Formats: sequence, C-alpha cells, structure tokens
Amino acid sequence: MDELLSKINSPQDLKALSYEELYSLAEEIRDEIIITLSETGGHLASSLGAVEITLALHSALDTPQDKIIWDVGHQSYAHKLITGRQEEFSTLRQYGGLSGFPKRSESEYDHLDVGHSSTSISAALGMAAACDLENKEETVLSVIGDGALTGGIAFEALNHAGHLNKDLIVLLNDNEMSISKNVGAVSNYLDKLRVNPQLHRAKEEVENIINKIPALGNKVLKTAGKFKDAIKYLVVSGILFEKLGFTYLGPIDGHNIKVLKEHIKNAEEIGGPVLIHAVTQKGKGYPPAENTPADYHGVGPFNVRTGKAKRKKKQLTYTQAYTQSLIDLAKADEEIVAITAAMPKGTGDFENQFPDRFYDVGIAEQHAVTFGAGLALEGAKPFITIYSTFLQRAYDQIFHDLCLQQAPVKLALDRGGLVGKDGETHHGVFDFAYLRHLPNITVMAPKDEMELQSMVKTAAEYEAGPIAFRYPRGKGRGVKLKNPKSLEIGKGEILREGKDAAILAIGSMVYPALEAAEELTRAGIDLTVVNSRFVKPLDQELILNLAQQFDTIFTIEEHVLQGGFGSAVTELLIDNNLKLDVARIGLPDKFIEHGTQQELKAKYGLDVAGIKSKVKSQLQEG
Amino acid sequence: MDELLSKINSPQDLKALSYEELYSLAEEIRDEIIITLSETGGHLASSLGAVEITLALHSALDTPQDKIIWDVGHQSYAHKLITGRQEEFSTLRQYGGLSGFPKRSESEYDHLDVGHSSTSISAALGMAAACDLENKEETVLSVIGDGALTGGIAFEALNHAGHLNKDLIVLLNDNEMSISKNVGAVSNYLDKLRVNPQLHRAKEEVENIINKIPALGNKVLKTAGKFKDAIKYLVVSGILFEKLGFTYLGPIDGHNIKVLKEHIKNAEEIGGPVLIHAVTQKGKGYPPAENTPADYHGVGPFNVRTGKAKRKKKQLTYTQAYTQSLIDLAKADEEIVAITAAMPKGTGDFENQFPDRFYDVGIAEQHAVTFGAGLALEGAKPFITIYSTFLQRAYDQIFHDLCLQQAPVKLALDRGGLVGKDGETHHGVFDFAYLRHLPNITVMAPKDEMELQSMVKTAAEYEAGPIAFRYPRGKGRGVKLKNPKSLEIGKGEILREGKDAAILAIGSMVYPALEAAEELTRAGIDLTVVNSRFVKPLDQELILNLAQQFDTIFTIEEHVLQGGFGSAVTELLIDNNLKLDVARIGLPDKFIEHGTQQELKAKYGLDVAGIKSKVKSQLQEG
Repeated sequence: MDELLSKINSPQDLKALSYEELYSLAEEIRDEIIITLSETGGHLASSLGAVEITLALHSALDTPQDKIIWDVGHQSYAHKLITGRQEEFSTLRQYGGLSGFPKRSESEYDHLDVGHSSTSISAALGMAAACDLENKEETVLSVIGDGALTGGIAFEALNHAGHLNKDLIVLLNDNEMSISKNVGAVSNYLDKLRVNPQLHRAKEEVENIINKIPALGNKVLKTAGKFKDAIKYLVVSGILFEKLGFTYLGPIDGHNIKVLKEHIKNAEEIGGPVLIHAVTQKGKGYPPAENTPADYHGVGPFNVRTGKAKRKKKQLTYTQAYTQSLIDLAKADEEIVAITAAMPKGTGDFENQFPDRFYDVGIAEQHAVTFGAGLALEGAKPFITIYSTFLQRAYDQIFHDLCLQQAPVKLALDRGGLVGKDGETHHGVFDFAYLRHLPNITVMAPKDEMELQSMVKTAAEYEAGPIAFRYPRGKGRGVKLKNPKSLEIGKGEILREGKDAAILAIGSMVYPALEAAEELTRAGIDLTVVNSRFVKPLDQELILNLAQQFDTIFTIEEHVLQGGFGSAVTELLIDNNLKLDVARIGLPDKFIEHGTQQELKAKYGLDVAGIKSKVKSQLQEG
Repeated sequence: MDELLSKINSPQDLKALSYEELYSLAEEIRDEIIITLSETGGHLASSLGAVEITLALHSALDTPQDKIIWDVGHQSYAHKLITGRQEEFSTLRQYGGLSGFPKRSESEYDHLDVGHSSTSISAALGMAAACDLENKEETVLSVIGDGALTGGIAFEALNHAGHLNKDLIVLLNDNEMSISKNVGAVSNYLDKLRVNPQLHRAKEEVENIINKIPALGNKVLKTAGKFKDAIKYLVVSGILFEKLGFTYLGPIDGHNIKVLKEHIKNAEEIGGPVLIHAVTQKGKGYPPAENTPADYHGVGPFNVRTGKAKRKKKQLTYTQAYTQSLIDLAKADEEIVAITAAMPKGTGDFENQFPDRFYDVGIAEQHAVTFGAGLALEGAKPFITIYSTFLQRAYDQIFHDLCLQQAPVKLALDRGGLVGKDGETHHGVFDFAYLRHLPNITVMAPKDEMELQSMVKTAAEYEAGPIAFRYPRGKGRGVKLKNPKSLEIGKGEILREGKDAAILAIGSMVYPALEAAEELTRAGIDLTVVNSRFVKPLDQELILNLAQQFDTIFTIEEHVLQGGFGSAVTELLIDNNLKLDVARIGLPDKFIEHGTQQELKAKYGLDVAGIKSKVKSQLQEG
C-alpha cells in the first residue's frame, strides 16, 4: 500500500510511470480517499469516479501551465493528492485545513475557486481566449459532469465556444448522475450515446471512406456533403455537440487511462473546441458507493467496511421537518407541487408519494423558478426547494417571474446560514440581502423545526405573492413537533421580557439569543428577546415599540451584516427618526472559510458566548 | 386604410377573415405601428417582424384560454392591437398609458409580464404542467426569438421540456438577430437550416417511406431504427432540437399566415414538445428598418418617410462617454478587452477598432461574467458592459467567479437608475443592493459623463478585485470633457459647504442635490453637498466627520431605499453609535411604472423640487 502515492510530489512524477503503475496508483488514491473521508466526510462518490481521469489528465498535459478547470470541484480529491497536498489531505474540510474544493490560494494547480455548478466551460473559454491574445501555447481543459451540463451557463458557454473556435477541450465526465440520477433531454441523449460502443469502434474506418468521396462539381459536392453527414451520423455519435460547433470524441471508458490519454492528446492536435465524452461510474471502486452513489455524494464519517455512517442522526433535521410538513400538506391539498433542481433528497419522500406533482428540473435553478411561476400563475402551489446559495443563480428570475408577477410561489431555502465544511461557496449568508430589496416578496426564517413547519403551512396558504423561508443545514433543536399553525404575516413574538435592552433575533439565532439572555441575568443584564420571524415585512409595530422602550437594540442574524436583517431594522428605526444604539451582530464583509458550523459560529461571535460578550461590551460602553 | 383593424375587437373577429383579408389587416397593423411609433418611439423592428405570426396564432388558437407567452415582449404590439387595446395604442409607453411589454394587468390575453429575455419556455412549460394537473385541454405556446434562445434559462427549459414530454409548442421566431446580429453556434446552426428549404419539402414523402420500413426482429429493428434516423437526417432539419426531445417543424416562412396556421394546428395534433421554426425578417414592411434593423430595435420618435430620428441627440450620452474613454484606454493598453451580451452598441466602435479583443457572447449574461473572470485571471482586463437590470441574471456569477476569485473584472452597468419608457422590467434600481453585500467588490457611480470617464480609467487601473460602475440611460449633463483622472478608491468629494445639514448624493443625484442646495439658500437653508462616488467602500472618514458636524444627514440615490446607498450610510452611522437624523431619499419598495425619466423622477421626488421639499420638511420637523 501507498508505495507509489507517497512518491508523487507533483504531476511531473506521473510521467515516469507505466500504465500498470498508474492503475496501482489509482487504487492507492482510492484507498486514501476512502480512508480519509471515513474520518472527515466529504464528496466521496464523485471523487472516486474521477481518479483515472485525473491521472490521465496530469500525465497527458503539462500542468500547471496547461490548465485543468474542475467544474463544481466535487471530484478534485485525486487532483489534490497528486499536486503536493498529500500531507495535509487528512485535514480535508477541517477548520484551517484543505478546502473540499479547488482553491487558488492552495495550489498553483488550482486555477478557479469553485463550488457552484456549470461555470467551468465559461471560465476555461475565457482563459483560452486570454492565451490566444498573448500567443501562449497552453491547453485549457474543463472537466464537467453530465449533471452540471444541464446548467444554463454551461450551454451559454458551449454556444459561445462553438462560435469563437478557440482551442478548448471539454472533458465530459458522464456518470449519469448529478447528485441524484440525472434528468432532462440531454441526459436521455447521453444515455443513447452510451449504449452503442461497437458503432463507435467503426467510426474511424467509416470516416476514412467518407473522406475518400471525391469532390466533384459544386452541386454534387453539396449533396455529397449532406450524404457524408448522414453516413457519419450512422456511426458517429455526438451530433448534438457537433451541431454546437464541437468536435465530438467518444464515448470512451473514463476508467481506461490509456484511452483517456490518447483522446486528450488527440483533442489537442485537432484544435478548436473538442468535447471528449468519458463514461465513468460514480463511486467507482467502493462497492457501497457504486451501489447507491446518491447516498455517497456528500458523506459524514463512516465505517469503511460497511459503508454505514458512524454517527446516526437521531434528531430530526430541518430538511426532514420541512419535508414531513410539505408531504402532510400535499396529502390534503392537491394543488401543492414540489420542484427541485437536482436535489430530490431535499424534498424527502415527496417524489415517491406524489410522482405526478414532483418535478426535478436538473441543475437549472433559473428554470426551476420560472417554471414554478408558470405553475403558480395557473393555480398550482409550487414549493421550490433549493439551497440558499444555489438560489442565488435565480436572482433575476425571482425579480422578474415571481415578484413582478406577484406569483404565489413558495421558496424553501435549505442550508440558510453557515453550512460548515463546504465553506465559502456554500454558506447561505446572502439570502436576506438578495431578497429583501425586491418588491412584493415575503421573507421568513424559523427559530426551530416546529416553527419551520408552521412557515411551510403559512407559505402554502399565502396567495398574495412569492414567499420565502430559509432554514439551517443539519439537525433541528429537538423540540417537540405539534400541529403547525398559520403565522400572521409580518408578526414576530416576544419570548422574554427584560428591562435593559432588547435583542431582535432571526431564525437560527433566536435560541442562542435566549440562552445568552438567561445567562446574562447573572451579570445583572436583563434582556428582552424577540423572535423576529420575518425579515420582510418587518414587524414594525413591535420594533418601534421596543425602540421607544429601550436605549439599545441588538439585532442578530446568521447572515452578512451588509443589507441583511439588522440593516432592515436599522432602516426602519432611522426612517422613524428614532435615535438609539443599535448593535448589529452578524457576519463580516468577507467570505467565510470552512470549518464546522460550531467552529465558525464561535469564531464570528454567533454563539451564546459571542452574544454575551457583544451585549456586555455594548452596554458597558453605552 | 384601417378598414379592417378598427373592426377587430378581439381575436375572435379574426376567424371570419379570409387569408386575403388577413394580409390586408397585417398591412394596416404595420401602418398603425409605424405611425404610432414615429410619435411615441418603441420597439419597431421586432414588432414589424411578428405581425403575421401574431395573426396566425390568434386565428389558429382559442385565445385567451389557449395561451401565447411572448418572450421579452418586444414583438407584442400587433398582439396588443388585436386584443382590445387599439384605442389606447397611441398612449404606448407614455406615463399612464399602455406598457411597451405584455402585462397581465392590461389584458386577459397577456399571461406573463416580461421584459427580460429567455423566460418564456420555462413559464409556458409551467403553465402546460398546470393544465395537465387540472386536466385542462389548453394549448400553451411560447414565441421566442433566435436571440433569446441563447440565454441559458431557455436551454434549461428545452432540456426539461424534452424530458417532461408535456404538450408545449415553441414557436421560434428566427430573424437572425437578437438586438444586433445574433452570434453563437446555435445561430450558425440556424443559418444552415434556413438555406435548404427544398430539402424540407421532400420531408413528408421520405417520412412516409421511412414509416413503411417493417418492424422485424429486435436486433434488426435497432439497426433499422438507426438507419431510419440517418435517412431522416438526410432530409429533416432540426436534429439539434430533435435530440433535445422536441418534434421539429420547419423551417417555414414566418410571414406566410396560411403555412403558419397549418403548422400550429399540426403541432397541436402531434402533441408533446414541438418546435416550429419560422423564419422572419426583422423590420418587415418598413424599408429603413428592413435595411438596418439594429438601428430600429428601440427607436425614439422618427420621420415616417425618411426613417430618420426627429430629434437629433446633440449632447453626448453617458454610453458614448463611456465608449470614448474605453476605446482611448484600449489604444494604449492591449490587455483591455470588451465583452457584451448581444448589445455591441453599448461599446460603440470598440468592435470595429479592436475586433480581436471584442467578444459578443449573445444573450448570455451569466457566461459573459464567468468568461470575463477567465480572461481576467489570465491577465486580461475585461470590461463587461451590460444594462444594470440584465446583469441581475449574473448575480451568482458575480459572487462566485468575480468576488470569490477577486478577479479584476470591470463591470460597466449601463442604464443604472430609472430608464423611462421601458418601465418595470428595465429600471436599473437594484444594483447597489445586489452588489454591495458581496465581499471584495467595489461599486461606483459618477456624477456626470466626465466623472464616468475617470471611473473607466480608475477601473482599468484597479487590480485588487472586481469593480463596478453604473451610469444612467440617456444624455450626459453636457459638461466639458477633460483628461480623465484616476480616482482614489473609497473617496468622495465635498462640492459645497453649508452649515445646516449635509446631503450625501450618489451618481445621477449629485447635480440635482447641488442645485437644490443653491435654491434652498433662498429659504435660508445652507447645505453641505457631497458627491459620494463610492457605494462600496464608503468614504467612512468623510461621512463620520460630517456626522460629527451636523444633526441631520440626507442621502439621495436613484435606487430603491431597501439595501441601497442610504442603507449603507445608515449602517455605517449606526455601527459608530452616531445618533442623528438621517433622511434617505430614493425609490420606494414597489415596482416603478413606465414614463419619461423626468416624469418618474418628479413623481418620486428625485428632482430638484422633490429634494427641496424633502429637505425643508425634514429640517422643519427636526
């Protein structure tokens, strides 16, 4: 074990290895990934599927001058292991350790920080254009999954690349999955390409024959050209990509390093935009992940032998509480439909219980929102469930197709707030800010899983326009679930009455604020604590009353301070000419690194200790 | 003239007309559009190109039960004229009059408010899915241009539609243009489809033969299927759409009402997703617009006989000032490149002067931004020029590919603020809010065209991360242009010193604030006026100094108040425990209607009179 890997200090060291050794190395890398992730958790299935691709790329290309742009970055662990990051690999996704995604500050082999899907072709094309301007002879190659290919920006990039005709290689890592089974017409199309490898083998022969068809007169030539195309079509797959201006190579076995290398070299020689279609298996080499790759997309620590998670989550997660409630409501109300963008787990069993009312649109957040608008305008009640950070991609559609139409679409923003180990690209800490300045929208955040269920009910009943609610990643607070109740729009609740100051908390920060308030009594500080519930509309009456009552108001949110909840409260107070101390607690104006949710909350003062300290210093200063 | 049109009270009245009469009606509609727009201005070329399509649709379908979803809505004037809006047509785009776009509040025949591109297939698919859920037998049809088809969301929708297999008709109105000549691989592909109409004619015959190929054994069948496909490919165009799961019909003459109607009926019978490819001429029937349709996309009042604009713009526009400056800088700096999303006019002559450094990516704002990131990360200096409102579509890419990478991309947001007659969907009044909460970005707005040129220079020189500047639609202030100078990042300037209060103005509001201040001296009010220049980073030192000095600070911006510039100032003051009156002047939390910029500014208090009145009432209250 580990005989080869430990000797690979940079991709340069791959060049001396035989194919046999490369395959041995691949196995060592798989072991390293499986063993490390069994401790750290991470994106297992994608990374296992891309080991041979990684080795082939770094053998065939002269990295880092030649550039590999990993889409999303779920699949980059093998890349990290052979680009000088072996020693730190055990720190993967830990606070202060390696990022789970490519990161420019980590390595000269990482050319783009990623985490959101479908951007790699655009960025690679930009880099290829820059090489061209500077007459540099570098190969730029994007590695993109078939799931990511359904994102609109990937299509925009293909369309532009096919037109620009710069040298650009797109390696399509086709594992038939995004996070779950991939959907969509392109996916169906790829399915068909995959099944006919024997036709592919005939390709070169036939192309030779075709190329021997003599050029005759102009008219005959045209017919011959069309005829050539038709024959080609008989044996050459990939017509969709050819029509988009790409040379299509494949499908090839994405676990065959030799074939991969040959095709990469071949693509470099062909020039212009080339798409290599490599078929891989997600979870390759680890039977539990091969069998149910969706379960091994992102994993926590697990037992290597059984593949089972080490810690069982006994407590209900926010996602589960949401799902339960949505399904319960859908049983009684046939107008409720659910839309997901390639993450059907976010709506739990809805898919199976109401298959006719469930839509997985693929990685296509923009379409998800506008498709939902269409449904809502015709009387359905769509719940669109998307991570807070990924919904950023549909900001314009929320403006144009929800708010402007006052379409009664319900936006369920999962993973609002700090998400932990996925870091910068995944924290859902901008949603209040990107939503609250849009007219006609309602924005909520629940204090616990029970209130989340009430917000689901409230959203289902709300008909005046779009309504959004964001809830945290991970476990709920363990509160008892009772019947969800309808909440009055724009009304918060006072949870504790004190005499010294008031703290307006929203969402996940309500309980920590309450706990801090209890503990602060020992320091002789007596706080009023408000569960604000609504970022928009604010509970103006409540807030203005408190402002009359107190000299100091605190706001607290798991969100950036710029433009967020506290900002909204501040606007309200200032607009009412109220002059008091407002201390806003939240995240600073920077990208927040990865680490556990607890570590990050502690670092940024969003835990009980942080709140206490902030309250004390503010009241002592004031 | 106008014998038929005046009798068309609803699309129902079309059903009695002969084809000959329909063509006469088409001519009357064209005349009405040309004459009206020669007074009101508007989207001329697109609407002229879609007259026959409109008549064919409303004849073939039972509207409004059957639903026509117009993409962007530039082409909807004929639709307005035959759906009960003839009498108000002369109020088109005037304050209080008809909107220039489809609008649900105007007519039951308008099913979606539009203005931004590429959303129609998504919305139509949602409506089709809703019909299906409710077992309604309605036809839903999206009319989309070839330009709009390059937007990523349109592809996401095609991909989903081809998979869902609901009854949905997409009528591709292919005029080879978006606003300017269309670009991209899909566009090249459509070019090829268009040129071979004689092949199309053979289609039905060949399909008949194909369908007679007998079904034999399973294996033979498979080969036969492949063979059928290949023969089909010989004569049937549209393979790209077929591969996306659509039945492709066309290309057909989009000005032939009979052929259009037959194909619409045919598409209804076929069922599932069907794409009708109709070829039209932008500007059809009006020679000046036929000859240079890009010049007649959006027009002001013009002379009908000559096609020339009635009022010559003598004064430099902001766009021209920007362009001049960009070209000047590009002459001296080869690293400067320009990117546009289908609006090359926004960068003036850059396209011709530096063809190798100019990229028109099509209607693809997301890709534009990430493509720019790729260029910047490899050393180029990309200026991405996009309307403020359309850049909303790239919000996530600004977050992920610019801010996170600290990529030194320069974002030129044209048409920041109120744009006038295009109304709700086009006002650029959210940009401060959607940009300023993102880490690492710099956001500026110039007080006049001279300062805009200085900002262009500043942006070109700035290397620490992404930098954005937004400038208004229309004419500059007529100031003399001198050598642009580099601005210090985060520094504003005091333009006038007074003793009663300070007004912090940004961008277009600086001069009106200054003028108001001068006039207010007569009322005995003496204001300090600040040109803030930067929304991010704020000039903290300047603002905090003023806060020490005055009891009241005004902020003014051509932007919504929620999360905007005044909100940023308020956050700063509150964070520094400064208690003073802050009166924020800006736009309210609603969608702003259409009207001239002057009318809207007056209505919302963003002109000299409005500022004076606000200042007076605030200072008198306070």
